[in-house]
Amino acid sequence: MRLIINSGGPQAIDAWRTQFRTFAPDLDVVGWHEDPDPATIDYALVWAPDAGRLATFPNLKLIISAGAGVDHILADPALPRHLPIARMVTARTQTEMAEYVLTSALMITRNVKRITDNQPRRHWEIFDSLRVAADVRVGIMGLGHLGVAAAQLLSRAGFPVSGWSRGATTLPGLPSYAGQEQFTQFLANTDLLVCLLPATDATRGILNRDTLSQLPKGASLINAGRGTHMVTQDILDALNSGHLDQAILDVFEQEPLPEDSPLWTHPRITITPHCAAIPDRKERARHTALLIAANERGEALPNIFDPKRGY
Amino acid sequence: MRLIINSGGPQAIDAWRTQFRTFAPDLDVVGWHEDPDPATIDYALVWAPDAGRLATFPNLKLIISAGAGVDHILADPALPRHLPIARMVTARTQTEMAEYVLTSALMITRNVKRITDNQPRRHWEIFDSLRVAADVRVGIMGLGHLGVAAAQLLSRAGFPVSGWSRGATTLPGLPSYAGQEQFTQFLANTDLLVCLLPATDATRGILNRDTLSQLPKGASLINAGRGTHMVTQDILDALNSGHLDQAILDVFEQEPLPEDSPLWTHPRITITPHCAAIPDRKERARHTALLIAANERGEALPNIFDPKRGY
Repeated sequence: MRLIINSGGPQAIDAWRTQFRTFAPDLDVVGWHEDPDPATIDYALVWAPDAGRLATFPNLKLIISAGAGVDHILADPALPRHLPIARMVTARTQTEMAEYVLTSALMITRNVKRITDNQPRRHWEIFDSLRVAADVRVGIMGLGHLGVAAAQLLSRAGFPVSGWSRGATTLPGLPSYAGQEQFTQFLANTDLLVCLLPATDATRGILNRDTLSQLPKGASLINAGRGTHMVTQDILDALNSGHLDQAILDVFEQEPLPEDSPLWTHPRITITPHCAAIPDRKERARHTALLIAANERGEALPNIFDPKRGY
Repeated sequence: MRLIINSGGPQAIDAWRTQFRTFAPDLDVVGWHEDPDPATIDYALVWAPDAGRLATFPNLKLIISAGAGVDHILADPALPRHLPIARMVTARTQTEMAEYVLTSALMITRNVKRITDNQPRRHWEIFDSLRVAADVRVGIMGLGHLGVAAAQLLSRAGFPVSGWSRGATTLPGLPSYAGQEQFTQFLANTDLLVCLLPATDATRGILNRDTLSQLPKGASLINAGRGTHMVTQDILDALNSGHLDQAILDVFEQEPLPEDSPLWTHPRITITPHCAAIPDRKERARHTALLIAANERGEALPNIFDPKRGY
């Protein structure tokens, strides 16, 4: 059984082999750069594969995304559309994402950016009053594994939480809105909008002027979905008009975020370098080994990309 | 019934009167600066009262601290020691403090200071791996109302939490250590030390070289107790040697923190301006009105300062 890996570059392949020796000792691991015989490849673990390369593997059984999204794989025009694609959703990824959203939500609630911006100026600002979690209604867009994990953690920590999804997915035990017809109602009841949507044609540019204008004045935004969800200028306009109070952004259309982006210097934007969730190599090797073993036994696999839903 | 108030200065007295009209319409509210007949004062709501002034009120029944601590009242050498002092511990204060500690603990876990320091330099740093709450053992010093509230919230959010108190107080449902003899064991099992102790003679300077050296290498510190708990140079030394990783400090011996303090510019210290908990005027007026009514009915009052314990 042979697995080809395109994740972390040529320099990471030895570290991958070390991990797979533990979790799948019989698996033959080759690097994307090592130019193996294409007919020998059974499985591919990839992040942003070169266009056309996956189509050259005639015996490929399963494509495994190195991350939770698959947009970087779908971008390949020659992608063999009949093959299943497994999304990398591990328990650790869910925890990391949920804690990123909780950290960001508390930082917005407590005005942390203003405090940390004061520090280099040695400025001691007196705050008259504080908001607490119970004062801030959090609305989570996207109710997949990551959205549900974030909703549950924020709820446990004291935030009033509701969720919205394009389809009819609901949030266990919490208020949920679905579809375009309930989007307005969802936004009107949201003081802190959290985007954890997948990147699909239907969600592209959803964080735009129209969406933001339906939030209450003074609302804030966390985007840990994809950069393509944002219309950057609309977010800047909403911040500058005072309609939007703060934004914490982890993902961008171009990453690393270009040095000349106006997002870097806006006083009410916090930039994090796509670090909301970083599944580590060990975790991903373990998960990949489990997927391959389950597939070889003919079992149904979790988190398989569904072209009809778009994620 | 007359209440004298020393909190927020002369400019705050009208706002106080407005609040008390709601919560205690029959109460006569006078300002510290208004020079009323001392014999007419029944109650005093104070923060850092001028030394000797409380002793001039012959009919004073109860001193109410405007905050959770009473050290600013005990500092008065002429304080009438026979009078009870009520500490301002409201449900809102507990929530604010618990959320401050949770925010700070997550910021340390996720290296937020490094990320926010990168932003003005437009530096996109790649992180290889992340810590999650479950990786960071939090040890809370001080198991009063604030310590217990913080412990419970952090535990709900996924941190392994234990507590330590000088006396035999324990943490409901969580591991607790007590007294000097278990202090070493407590510190050895703590990756993130949180100080919520009261300011007493026994706790002065407890955050010193000896205490910090007993934490595992790479541990971090949150101080939301009092500035007098810290030996500042020992904390700087522990950070500079690499033994201590990060510190988030909310309280200082001198506040506002002087501009020339080296704490402002240390790359692994986050300064917050004594904003962990700021009970608002409405909340404090409501609580004070309840205390006065309970005292007039001869009931036992909550959170009365105990000179034997020191808090």
